Amino acid sequence: MQDTHITLAHGNGGRYMRSLIKDIFAKHLSSPSLDIQADAVTLHPDEGELMFTTDGFSVKPLEFPGGNIGSLAVHGTTNDLAVAGAIPRYLSLNAFIEEGFEVETLDRIIASLAASAKAINVEVAAGDTKVLPRGEGGGLYLATTGVGVRDPNIKLGLKRIKAGDKILVSGPIGDHGISVMLAREQFGLHGELLSDAASVLSLTTALLDLSELHFMRDPTRGGLATVAHEIAIACHKNIVLEQPQIPIRDTVQSVCDILGYDPMYLACEGRVVAIIGADQADEALKKWQQLPEGEDAAIIGEIREGKPFVTLRTELGGERILEELEDDPLPRIC
Amino acid sequence: MQDTHITLAHGNGGRYMRSLIKDIFAKHLSSPSLDIQADAVTLHPDEGELMFTTDGFSVKPLEFPGGNIGSLAVHGTTNDLAVAGAIPRYLSLNAFIEEGFEVETLDRIIASLAASAKAINVEVAAGDTKVLPRGEGGGLYLATTGVGVRDPNIKLGLKRIKAGDKILVSGPIGDHGISVMLAREQFGLHGELLSDAASVLSLTTALLDLSELHFMRDPTRGGLATVAHEIAIACHKNIVLEQPQIPIRDTVQSVCDILGYDPMYLACEGRVVAIIGADQADEALKKWQQLPEGEDAAIIGEIREGKPFVTLRTELGGERILEELEDDPLPRIC
Repeated sequence: MQDTHITLAHGNGGRYMRSLIKDIFAKHLSSPSLDIQADAVTLHPDEGELMFTTDGFSVKPLEFPGGNIGSLAVHGTTNDLAVAGAIPRYLSLNAFIEEGFEVETLDRIIASLAASAKAINVEVAAGDTKVLPRGEGGGLYLATTGVGVRDPNIKLGLKRIKAGDKILVSGPIGDHGISVMLAREQFGLHGELLSDAASVLSLTTALLDLSELHFMRDPTRGGLATVAHEIAIACHKNIVLEQPQIPIRDTVQSVCDILGYDPMYLACEGRVVAIIGADQADEALKKWQQLPEGEDAAIIGEIREGKPFVTLRTELGGERILEELEDDPLPRIC
Repeated sequence: MQDTHITLAHGNGGRYMRSLIKDIFAKHLSSPSLDIQADAVTLHPDEGELMFTTDGFSVKPLEFPGGNIGSLAVHGTTNDLAVAGAIPRYLSLNAFIEEGFEVETLDRIIASLAASAKAINVEVAAGDTKVLPRGEGGGLYLATTGVGVRDPNIKLGLKRIKAGDKILVSGPIGDHGISVMLAREQFGLHGELLSDAASVLSLTTALLDLSELHFMRDPTRGGLATVAHEIAIACHKNIVLEQPQIPIRDTVQSVCDILGYDPMYLACEGRVVAIIGADQADEALKKWQQLPEGEDAAIIGEIREGKPFVTLRTELGGERILEELEDDPLPRIC
C-alpha cells in the first residue's frame, strides 16, 4: 500500500479499495476460508450446535496498555461464544475507517487482530471496509460476528441457575476499565496497569465437564455489578456478593478511590463470572487457579431465594444494595 | 422507551441500554432465534453448505426514496449470499448510534430492517449496539453478517467463467446511486426516481437450476464497471460490454449527463450480473424477464479471450476501454 493515510478513494469499490483490502486486511488475515474475491465463503464447522454472536467496538484510545481495538474485537466476540460453552471457529470483520486515518496504525491494529485470532485457532472468514468522511467516525470502529460450535450435551443458561449456587470470578475486576481510562490521560494519572483484555477460552473450556456448571458470562460493559443484575432480574433471585472476596488490584482500587469510581461497574475484557452448584464450586475454583489466567480466581458470592436485588456484604458485616448502572462511569470502553 | 433522543447512557450496559434494546431492537426483530439475554444463540440451518458474508453500511442520507439504511443492511448482506447461490437464513446486526440521534427515526429504520428480513424469511439472530459521542458517528452506521445455506451441487465462482460466456444484467443500472444523490439535494436536483435497493433472492434462485450458470454478482459500490473489472482481472479475460444493450433509465442518464457522471460506475443495490454459458443465456434471460424484478433484464455483453480489459462498444460501433474506478463519484452510497 503506497499511501500513508486513508482517503475516501479507499472506500469506493475500485483500485484503491482493492489495495487497502489486499495490502492490509488480506495480508494479515489470510486463512483457508477467507476469499477476498468471493461474495460469500463456505464454512466448515465441526459437528455440534452452531452458535452465533456479534459485538461492536468503539474503544478510545484505539491502543491501550495490554491491547487495542483489534485484539479486543477478537476477544470480545469469541469470549461471548466461549462463555456460552462453544468453541469459536470463525469471525467476520467490519471496519469503519475515518478518512485521514494513518495506514501504519491500521496495519498494526489489524496485525494484532490477526495474531489474537490465530492464537485461539479462529479464522476471519469474511470482511468489509467502509471509509467515513473526515470528522465523522472517530478514527476506527470495528464489528465482529462470531460462529462457534458447541457440544450439544452442554446445557448452560440463566434458567439453570438455582438458589444455593456459588458465584465465581476468574480474576481481578476493573483492570480493563482503569487501564483504558489511564491511557486517555485526561486525569493526569499514569500507571503500569495492563488491561485484562484476553481470550477466556481456556477458562471456559476448563469448566465444561462440570455437570453443575449452570451459567457463565464475561463482565464487560457495566462490569460485575451489571452481570449480577442481569442474573437477578432474569432469575428473580437475590444475588449476594461478598466484598472482601472480590479480587481487585490495589492500583484499580486506588484510582477508583481518587476519582470516585466503583470498581463493581468497571469493564473487564478477559474475566469470566461462573455460576456453579455449591457441590462443585471448590473443584471449579481449583481448575481455574491452575491456569495462569485464573490464578486469582475466587468464590465471591451466592444465589439466594429473595427479591431480585444485588446485595453487597461489606468487610464489617454490613450490607448494601448495588444499584443498577445508570450513569456511564466511562464511555467508549470497548 | 421514554427518551426521544439517544444519550451516552444508552450505551453503557445498564438500564438505559436494556430499554433501548428491548423497546426498539427486540420489539421489531423478535424471532425464534434471537435471545437478548444470551451471549450467543444456537442456529439451526437446513442441510447444505454453510455460507458466510458481511457488509457495513454508512449511507447518507439514512432514508432515501425506495429504502433506508435499515432495509439496505438486510439487502446488501443477504444479496451477497444470494449471488453466491445460497439461501440467506440468519443475520447479525451491529448498530453504531450517535448520541443525540432521534429515537423515532431509529425506530422507523429498525422497523424497516425487520420487515425486509421477514420478507425473505431471514432471522436477525444476534445484535449489538454502541453509542458514539455526539459529533462522531454520522448518525447511524450499521453492519450485518449473514449466514446462509447452499445446495452443495451448486458450483459458482470466478473460476467457472469461460470465453464465450454471456453477461446478463437483471435491470436498469445506477438507480440507487442517483436516487441517493438526489436525496442529498446538494445539486438542487429532484426527481421521482426510486432506489433499486431490494432483495435479489428471487432473481438468483430463478437461475440456480441452469447448469451453465457460472457466476453471479450484485454491482454495488463501483457499479457495473467494477464488477466487469473484477471479472477481467480474476479470469484474465477481455470483457466486452455492448453499450446500447445496457438498461439505463432516462432519469439516470439525464442526471449523469448534467453532472458528468458515468452510470457504469454508479451503485445498484437490487441488481444481479450473471455470467452464463452462451447456450443457456436466452433461457436465463426469459426466466428473469418473467419476474417483476427482472422485466428489464438484458444480455449486455460477453467474455472473450484477450487482455484483462473492459471494452465498451458504443452505439456507433466504436470501442473504448473502461478504466478502473479511482475517483469516488459518490461517497457513502451504501
